[in-house]
Amino acid sequence: MSSSFGSIFRISTWGESHGVGVGVVIDGCPARLPLTAAQIQAELDKRRPGQSDIVTPRNEADTVEILSGVVDGLTTGTPIALSVRNKDHRSSAYDEMQHTYRPSHADFCYDAKYGIRAWAGGGRASARETIGRVAAGAVAKAILQALCPQLEVVAWVQQVHTIICPVAPHAVQADTVNGNIVRTADAESAELMAHAIREARSNGNSLGGVVACTVRNCPVGLGDPVFDKLEATLAHAMMSIPATKGFEVGSGFSAPLFTGSQHNDEFYMEGQRVRTRTNNSGGIQGGISNGEDINMRIAFKPTATLMLEQNTVNDAHQEVTLRGKGRHDACVLPRAVPVVEAMACIVLADHLLKQRTTRIDFNA
Amino acid sequence: MSSSFGSIFRISTWGESHGVGVGVVIDGCPARLPLTAAQIQAELDKRRPGQSDIVTPRNEADTVEILSGVVDGLTTGTPIALSVRNKDHRSSAYDEMQHTYRPSHADFCYDAKYGIRAWAGGGRASARETIGRVAAGAVAKAILQALCPQLEVVAWVQQVHTIICPVAPHAVQADTVNGNIVRTADAESAELMAHAIREARSNGNSLGGVVACTVRNCPVGLGDPVFDKLEATLAHAMMSIPATKGFEVGSGFSAPLFTGSQHNDEFYMEGQRVRTRTNNSGGIQGGISNGEDINMRIAFKPTATLMLEQNTVNDAHQEVTLRGKGRHDACVLPRAVPVVEAMACIVLADHLLKQRTTRIDFNA
Amino acid sequence: MSSSFGSIFRISTWGESHGVGVGVVIDGCPARLPLTAAQIQAELDKRRPGQSDIVTPRNEADTVEILSGVVDGLTTGTPIALSVRNKDHRSSAYDEMQHTYRPSHADFCYDAKYGIRAWAGGGRASARETIGRVAAGAVAKAILQALCPQLEVVAWVQQVHTIICPVAPHAVQADTVNGNIVRTADAESAELMAHAIREARSNGNSLGGVVACTVRNCPVGLGDPVFDKLEATLAHAMMSIPATKGFEVGSGFSAPLFTGSQHNDEFYMEGQRVRTRTNNSGGIQGGISNGEDINMRIAFKPTATLMLEQNTVNDAHQEVTLRGKGRHDACVLPRAVPVVEAMACIVLADHLLKQRTTRIDFNA
Amino acid sequence: MSSSFGSIFRISTWGESHGVGVGVVIDGCPARLPLTAAQIQAELDKRRPGQSDIVTPRNEADTVEILSGVVDGLTTGTPIALSVRNKDHRSSAYDEMQHTYRPSHADFCYDAKYGIRAWAGGGRASARETIGRVAAGAVAKAILQALCPQLEVVAWVQQVHTIICPVAPHAVQADTVNGNIVRTADAESAELMAHAIREARSNGNSLGGVVACTVRNCPVGLGDPVFDKLEATLAHAMMSIPATKGFEVGSGFSAPLFTGSQHNDEFYMEGQRVRTRTNNSGGIQGGISNGEDINMRIAFKPTATLMLEQNTVNDAHQEVTLRGKGRHDACVLPRAVPVVEAMACIVLADHLLKQRTTRIDFNA
Repeated sequence: MSSSFGSIFRISTWGESHGVGVGVVIDGCPARLPLTAAQIQAELDKRRPGQSDIVTPRNEADTVEILSGVVDGLTTGTPIALSVRNKDHRSSAYDEMQHTYRPSHADFCYDAKYGIRAWAGGGRASARETIGRVAAGAVAKAILQALCPQLEVVAWVQQVHTIICPVAPHAVQADTVNGNIVRTADAESAELMAHAIREARSNGNSLGGVVACTVRNCPVGLGDPVFDKLEATLAHAMMSIPATKGFEVGSGFSAPLFTGSQHNDEFYMEGQRVRTRTNNSGGIQGGISNGEDINMRIAFKPTATLMLEQNTVNDAHQEVTLRGKGRHDACVLPRAVPVVEAMACIVLADHLLKQRTTRIDFNA
Repeated sequence: MSSSFGSIFRISTWGESHGVGVGVVIDGCPARLPLTAAQIQAELDKRRPGQSDIVTPRNEADTVEILSGVVDGLTTGTPIALSVRNKDHRSSAYDEMQHTYRPSHADFCYDAKYGIRAWAGGGRASARETIGRVAAGAVAKAILQALCPQLEVVAWVQQVHTIICPVAPHAVQADTVNGNIVRTADAESAELMAHAIREARSNGNSLGGVVACTVRNCPVGLGDPVFDKLEATLAHAMMSIPATKGFEVGSGFSAPLFTGSQHNDEFYMEGQRVRTRTNNSGGIQGGISNGEDINMRIAFKPTATLMLEQNTVNDAHQEVTLRGKGRHDACVLPRAVPVVEAMACIVLADHLLKQRTTRIDFNA
Repeated sequence: MSSSFGSIFRISTWGESHGVGVGVVIDGCPARLPLTAAQIQAELDKRRPGQSDIVTPRNEADTVEILSGVVDGLTTGTPIALSVRNKDHRSSAYDEMQHTYRPSHADFCYDAKYGIRAWAGGGRASARETIGRVAAGAVAKAILQALCPQLEVVAWVQQVHTIICPVAPHAVQADTVNGNIVRTADAESAELMAHAIREARSNGNSLGGVVACTVRNCPVGLGDPVFDKLEATLAHAMMSIPATKGFEVGSGFSAPLFTGSQHNDEFYMEGQRVRTRTNNSGGIQGGISNGEDINMRIAFKPTATLMLEQNTVNDAHQEVTLRGKGRHDACVLPRAVPVVEAMACIVLADHLLKQRTTRIDFNA
Repeated sequence: MSSSFGSIFRISTWGESHGVGVGVVIDGCPARLPLTAAQIQAELDKRRPGQSDIVTPRNEADTVEILSGVVDGLTTGTPIALSVRNKDHRSSAYDEMQHTYRPSHADFCYDAKYGIRAWAGGGRASARETIGRVAAGAVAKAILQALCPQLEVVAWVQQVHTIICPVAPHAVQADTVNGNIVRTADAESAELMAHAIREARSNGNSLGGVVACTVRNCPVGLGDPVFDKLEATLAHAMMSIPATKGFEVGSGFSAPLFTGSQHNDEFYMEGQRVRTRTNNSGGIQGGISNGEDINMRIAFKPTATLMLEQNTVNDAHQEVTLRGKGRHDACVLPRAVPVVEAMACIVLADHLLKQRTTRIDFNA
């Protein structure tokens, strides 16, 4: 079930880069949730190729079709099947990749694992697979909005190569993020990052970075100890996104630099609400949300496909050289932002539904 | 199913810190695997409290009993139930914690989620829960040893507070790690780290750190795209360990500092074997093992329970102060090493078994 | 995950009767399995409406499209998405059913459970949902044929109303079954049954019956005690088919009429093979296949939708009368045969793959 | 995960007949449910060996111990581990069974599947495995009682060999059933059945029968189309009980003898409640409970282990004879009643919890 994710709100994605299309089936969405194709399309448009000059020029409208599970604008409680047809068919740009393994791409490992691969454009390992995630994330977001109207999930590009956006998580505004082509949190960083990406592309090179994500006004009590702790399922979700190399929550890899007395988040009362004065925990304690902002960071490596000549091997086990062709993102970060948000929504919606089976008022 | 983990090799842990005991049921272990209680005990002894002067003095032998699933030293293919009885019963040291929430511990969140908690000694959120993981990890390790005799999983303490052990992952030796009480990779670091831990303890304070883990001679082809990528399931496993704040694989959070041409791992042939000259991928590409060393790092925060007075609130929502009592690790890192190894073995064994259903020679 | 079935070979169906279409996503199919759309279409054609004068005249070609997971006639190990577009759109024949509950149909319960339903043509509760099962069954059948070429799954209509086909399970031939429109095991029964079905239809009434299914040359060892015993998973599979009321294996409900000494199947040796002289066990002992024929029987009730006036209630909770319109099978049995075969293949393929993780030669 | 069952309320049983003990871990039980060992023991006492002269004289108190998950009489939301130690250790009575396969028992198939078996007393295939089910069923029953106080699950022995208890399902009273050693529904049948069982035992023979089960006042809306229809999960649950050969719901195998107009259950209004005049549906339509009584019947074969000489083979593939020794039930039906009730409660509790995630008032 490697292409399924979630326990109650469960998604199953399918599709390859240059096949008929890509899609997702969502099982376990509650009935009578208002849902339109437009809501889903709005999220897909954020990850669409060709949306600016710093992403891949591959020309795809990525129009979603609702195949089942919605009647008269309401979900029916039965599986929601969503599909996007591929338009941009396989070109000769990919021919060389049929037999030659791109360094640090999935080509070799797919061949080694399966003995076969849909080689055109990366097949199942292509970033197009994330379309199903973003579509499902839009449905998860609708659940969150219906049940927790105050909850807000915002992701942004916090770092590209050596350029770091200095805006603190609590100050990041979704409008600002969606208002620049890099999807970072201020205009100055956006300009610097866009410049770096353009330069890398013109050199045939590529860049990585960090996407940060914050969840505001999360209900207290989400997360299922011990193996499905909230941070564990978030880590699973984020590290399943292509090109990710690291995940941290709260203080993350800086946690060891604190002593316990420095790191502990003291509790205090804000009216009737239990709060913490600091938030090194990143909104999660004991695997369960404590109501403070959930702060995460996800590291992405630079895109593997380069327009530079590289040494590699082919499937006949000969040492050869390869220079990438086709249309690729020199930096995936801007288009990774909606994918990170989608995965966060999927994890939260699943925990929110599960919590309805955990905490029941038996005296009612 | 929050207390179960794995798809084919599936473990379900149970138990609280000061209840009757803790344990695990393993379903999906193949039949006819040689297995003895001594093999499991050897791993449990590595995480046992009281094993040195830098860990908690709680006095527990943690003796494992095999309740089912093994006959005449061979597994039967049916569930393996393993149990460890608690010996060190609840003392008055914990009384205050019944109503007062330790900062950055699970107390508040358990109450908020469940409306109840086994408060003595942390209950289900205690590190004693990891006994079931280590016991199951010993069984997973036996599968790996039987099917991949060359495969080696080694974890070690790479950092305590500001002290970093400089030994490179490929040079770390299991004997050295097991030969010092900190479980780090050289004697000098061990001395510095032990000193720091003793000092923190004498101050009533605590320290965090980083556990690194390397997997050598992993077969090519493990990991199940797209959601159960090898790094995603490893991240899930590691981030479910108490006190973890971050996970990275290969270049991790330093990945963004490379350009694509710097980061890509060029392929070459070593005899008949496809190798990479560098290993920024950390042994995983496209979510699948490529045969190179799998290198991970896991960040741990400092222990939450301190012997210092802290501000907090109680379950009557009053602001109060709390000074910890009882016996706690001033630094969990030394005893976290066998837990990290166990979780790595559990993930690998599961993928190894699953791969037997993915790659089949249909012409045979 | 109510619309998913299977543990390793796992199918997820979607779609409603009068929506865009119906389909299935198959996760866990091994790589490099030869598979064509024609193989799948051949099975779908067996359940197609309009194939004879005794089934519904609804006009649907039910043409399958492979959306993903197959390249150059081989599976890739990634999800196989199969889809069939609906052609025969909703007509005014169903208008009355929007608010009035058909007796013994799913209408009332869907409303009660979900608070909404895709009412046209039964929506998700329509027999069209079984298209996904039959398509997935064709893939499962391909696995069985590749790994167990001798294995044969044959289902047939053993009873329609009071007419019982007398051919013994071991004597039933697939060619005979496929050679008559009722899909029973001899020509004489076929004629009698077809006559009864035509008569019921002309009266606006409907008939039920029994589908029997036999599995020949099943490998010894399939089935997973204790909860996924072979008969338990077969029962789950069969009782999830619409309109089923009972399942039995081997001696079934006649078992109580035997004493133990009459019922026990004595073992003997046939060359090197362990055989039983009788087969009251129906090929399964202790939840595991023993190599003898697996014999099952599944009871189907008469179709609920009638062209006769019936008393019922509507969704305003008024007592009303209803006379069915639209095009319905007066007897679902002929078209249920391929569905039963499909579900049997899905269960067997799943157990066959799982067995590869249970029985491993650790000395090899 | 062959030894786990359920989706949200999920049980994992372990243990063999003559090992250390047997038990179950329950994950997904809601928090703050009142639960005592006495409640569980009361159910276990119903399946205890040695409770009357017509069941096995094996002497076991079967005392349950709650190992985790309950504090101060309330569940904590974490795994509930329950264990029963075996007292009656393996005797020489079983020695012959080490190498010789009992006809129609699991011995041969376990060897064929796993290459090994815990042979003493049937090992994992022993009826002792059902202790974990009954213990878990007691917890499920507590959930049902807390959330649906009117709901009642009653099972009884409806048939032993040729003796049929004539009491109609709606007239069966739990007190009557628990008041006779056969657990049938009237005193006269009890006497006839007990006599038949005693006679079979004195002949070294055994008998089978039918257990019927009715669920009264089940909430409308339970069951999850399409694969986890209520009848499908009930069939899975019941057919996983040792010695079962058939399952039917409502009209069952007599359904084909009705025409549609005879079989359909007409709806009418009883005050504000939608009712059906007949109940051929057995309380389930479209896979979902409709509020009428859920009526099931489960067929059991005669006990396989006989005190008569039978022809069989041994594990050296020699044809030999075998006469059973040890203490066995000549008829399992009386002790199967609490197992059937337990499995029904487990299925219902799981669906009841799942329904809390399906039907949500999004306007609230």
